[in-house]
Amino acid sequence: MSSISEILQKIRSKSPLVHNITNYVVMNNTANALLAVGASPVMAHAKEEVEDIVAISSSLVINMGTLSDKWVESMLMAAAQAKATNTPFVFDPVGVGASAYRMEVAQKIIETAIPNVIRGNASEIMALAKLTNSTKGVDSTIDTQDAIEGASLLAKQLNNTVVISGAIDYIITADTISKIENGSPLMAKITGMGCTATAMVGACLGVEENTHLAAVTAMVIMGVAGDMANEKSAGPGSFQMNFYDSLYELSPEVLAVKVKTNA
Amino acid sequence: MSSISEILQKIRSKSPLVHNITNYVVMNNTANALLAVGASPVMAHAKEEVEDIVAISSSLVINMGTLSDKWVESMLMAAAQAKATNTPFVFDPVGVGASAYRMEVAQKIIETAIPNVIRGNASEIMALAKLTNSTKGVDSTIDTQDAIEGASLLAKQLNNTVVISGAIDYIITADTISKIENGSPLMAKITGMGCTATAMVGACLGVEENTHLAAVTAMVIMGVAGDMANEKSAGPGSFQMNFYDSLYELSPEVLAVKVKTNA
Amino acid sequence: MSSISEILQKIRSKSPLVHNITNYVVMNNTANALLAVGASPVMAHAKEEVEDIVAISSSLVINMGTLSDKWVESMLMAAAQAKATNTPFVFDPVGVGASAYRMEVAQKIIETAIPNVIRGNASEIMALAKLTNSTKGVDSTIDTQDAIEGASLLAKQLNNTVVISGAIDYIITADTISKIENGSPLMAKITGMGCTATAMVGACLGVEENTHLAAVTAMVIMGVAGDMANEKSAGPGSFQMNFYDSLYELSPEVLAVKVKTNA
Repeated sequence: MSSISEILQKIRSKSPLVHNITNYVVMNNTANALLAVGASPVMAHAKEEVEDIVAISSSLVINMGTLSDKWVESMLMAAAQAKATNTPFVFDPVGVGASAYRMEVAQKIIETAIPNVIRGNASEIMALAKLTNSTKGVDSTIDTQDAIEGASLLAKQLNNTVVISGAIDYIITADTISKIENGSPLMAKITGMGCTATAMVGACLGVEENTHLAAVTAMVIMGVAGDMANEKSAGPGSFQMNFYDSLYELSPEVLAVKVKTNA
Repeated sequence: MSSISEILQKIRSKSPLVHNITNYVVMNNTANALLAVGASPVMAHAKEEVEDIVAISSSLVINMGTLSDKWVESMLMAAAQAKATNTPFVFDPVGVGASAYRMEVAQKIIETAIPNVIRGNASEIMALAKLTNSTKGVDSTIDTQDAIEGASLLAKQLNNTVVISGAIDYIITADTISKIENGSPLMAKITGMGCTATAMVGACLGVEENTHLAAVTAMVIMGVAGDMANEKSAGPGSFQMNFYDSLYELSPEVLAVKVKTNA
Repeated sequence: MSSISEILQKIRSKSPLVHNITNYVVMNNTANALLAVGASPVMAHAKEEVEDIVAISSSLVINMGTLSDKWVESMLMAAAQAKATNTPFVFDPVGVGASAYRMEVAQKIIETAIPNVIRGNASEIMALAKLTNSTKGVDSTIDTQDAIEGASLLAKQLNNTVVISGAIDYIITADTISKIENGSPLMAKITGMGCTATAMVGACLGVEENTHLAAVTAMVIMGVAGDMANEKSAGPGSFQMNFYDSLYELSPEVLAVKVKTNA
C-alpha cells in the first residue's frame, strides 16, 4: 500500500488546485473535504472564465447534481479545455437516470471529453451503461453487484476507470476490478458523500498519473476517514464533523494500516 | 399521538422522494435533514427536467429564498406539474414582504397551484395574507399571535393548511388551530431552520394524505428534535450538528412522549 | 478597546440587516456566522429586487467567489444603489487574479461604487493593486508582508479601508496600518473563513460609521472567536462548529481581554 500512502503525502506537499464545477448542494462540503485532506479547491462556472481556470488547475471535477442550461454550456467548455490541455478529468453523473435531460447532458459531456474517471452509485453507473433507465433521485436503488458488469462494459468502451461507490466500493477498468471495504453506513445519511468522493478522485488525479491508482486511493481515503469518523459519531451530524477532522488528521501510516482492499 | 408516530415510521419505511426547488443557502441543510429523518431528497431546478422529476416524486417543496427569473419559471412549471399529477405541494414564501418582486412571485405560484401547505414565519404569513407589507429580511418582526388571524383567512381563502412557525408553531386550517410548543431558541440562530421545517412538511406529505396531520407531524418532528438537540448544545454550531443526530435517532416512541401539542 | 466592545454590543442590540450577494460555496456559513454574532442576514441577487433589498438594509456585502453574467449585473445594480442610498458597502474580490474575467468584474464593481472596505488575502489585494497577476485559486500564494504596500496604495487611491487577512490581519487606510494577531491556523483549512470575515465587516459597518474601526472590530471578532474555537477543536470540522458557538457566546468583555492588536 506504499503507493496509496505516497499519493496522500503528495496531496499534502503539492496541494493540487482542483477545479470543481459542481452542484449547489455540496459545494461547501467538497471544498471543505479538499481543504481538510490538503488540496486546494476552486469553484468557478462562468463561461467567461472556465477555460482560464482549467488551464491553471491540476485537475477538473464535473458534477451534474443541479443542472441548468448555462452551467451545462460551461461544463462542456471546461471538459473541452481539459482535453486540450491534458488536464485529468473526473465526472460525477449525479441522478443520471432520473430525467431525460440528465441522460442527454451526461452523454454530451462524455462525447466532449472522455473522463479519466467516472464515479457514481450503482444505479447511475447502470444508467450510464444504458443498461437501465430507472433512478430513484440521487440515491442508488439497484444492487451494487449488478452494476459491476455495466461498469466493466463502460470502462472497456471508454478505456477509462469507473468507480461504483456504495457499502463496498468498486474501482473498475477494462481488465481489473478492485474492491474497497472501508466506510460507514452513516455516509449514506449525509448529502454529498458521493460528490465528495468524486472531488477526492480529483485531488488524487492532480498528483498521480495512473488513473486507476488515483481512483483507488481516493476511495481508500474516503473509506478510512469514514471508519475513523464512525467510531466517534452518534449520527449523521456528528459524523459529518468528525469526517473532516479525520481527513485532516489522516496520516499515510494510518491509511496503510486501516485499508481493506484487494487492490 | 399514534398517528404522528405512524407517519414518522412511514417516512422511515417508504423513504419518500421529496423534490426540492429551494434556495442556495439551505440546500445542504434541508437535504441532510431529509436524509437524517429517513426521506430521500432530490434537488432539481432546470426547466428541462422539473416536470420529469415532479412526476417521479412523492411531494414537491418550493422555497423562494433566493429567487431569479429562470428559477421562477421552473417553480411555476413544477407547481403546474404537481397540480396535474396530484403531487402534494408545500410552499415556503421566504421573505415575501421584503420586495415587490417576492410578493409578485408568491402570488404567481399560488395562482398556478394552490399549495397543500404554506409554511412561513409570522411576518411572511401576514404579508401573504396582504395584511402587511413590511418584512425585515427573512426573519420575523411581528408578533406571532397577530398573524394567526391572517393565517386563518388565508387557509379559508385557499382551503389549505397554513403553518406559522416560531417559538410556538401554529398549524391552521379553515376551522382548526393546532399549537406545538416544542423547540429551542437556538433554532432562530441558525439559517434555514424554517426552510428545513418546510422540507419536513414535504417528507410528511409524501406519506400522509391528510395535509393538516402531515403539517402537524412535521412541526412535531422539528420541535422534538430541537428539544433533544438543545439539551446537548453550547450554541448554534453544536445545535446544528446535534439536530441532525436527533432527527436520525428520533424514535416514534420518543416522539409520542415528548410532543407538546393540543393537536 | 471599549469601542470595539461597544460595536459588538450594538450588533447584538440592533441586529443590523446585512444584504449579501455572495458565492454559492459560503452562503450557508456566512448566514450562520451573521446570525451567531447577532446580525440579521439576507441573501438576494435577482436584478428585480436587489435595489429594494439594499434600500432596507444596514449594509451591503458583495463577494465574487462564484461569478456569472446575471450575478455580475445584479452586483453592479446593488453597488450603484448602495452609493445612491449611502449604504455602507464591503467588497470581497475572491480569486481576483485567477482569471481575466475576475479582474474585469472587480474593476467594474469598484468603478460603480468605491467600497468602504475591501477585504481579501494577500494575493487578491496585490492583484487588485495591479502589482501582480498570479493567484492560486482562492488561496493566497504571496507573503502577506509583501501585500501591505499594495494595500496602502489601494487605500490611498480609493480613500477607503483595505483589509488583508491571513495569519496576521492588517487593516490599512491611507495613513494607518493596524495589525491583529488573533486567530487559528485551522481557519485556512475551512472554506469561506475569508468570506465570513467580509460578512462580519458588513455587520460592523451596519452599526458603525467609522469604517476603519468597523473593519478592525470585524477582524477582532473573527480572530478572538477563532482563538476560542481553536482551544476546543481536533480539526477543521470541529473548529467550524466551535467557531459558531464561540461567535454566539462571545461577550464584549471577553473581546476586550483577548484581543491582540496595535489598533
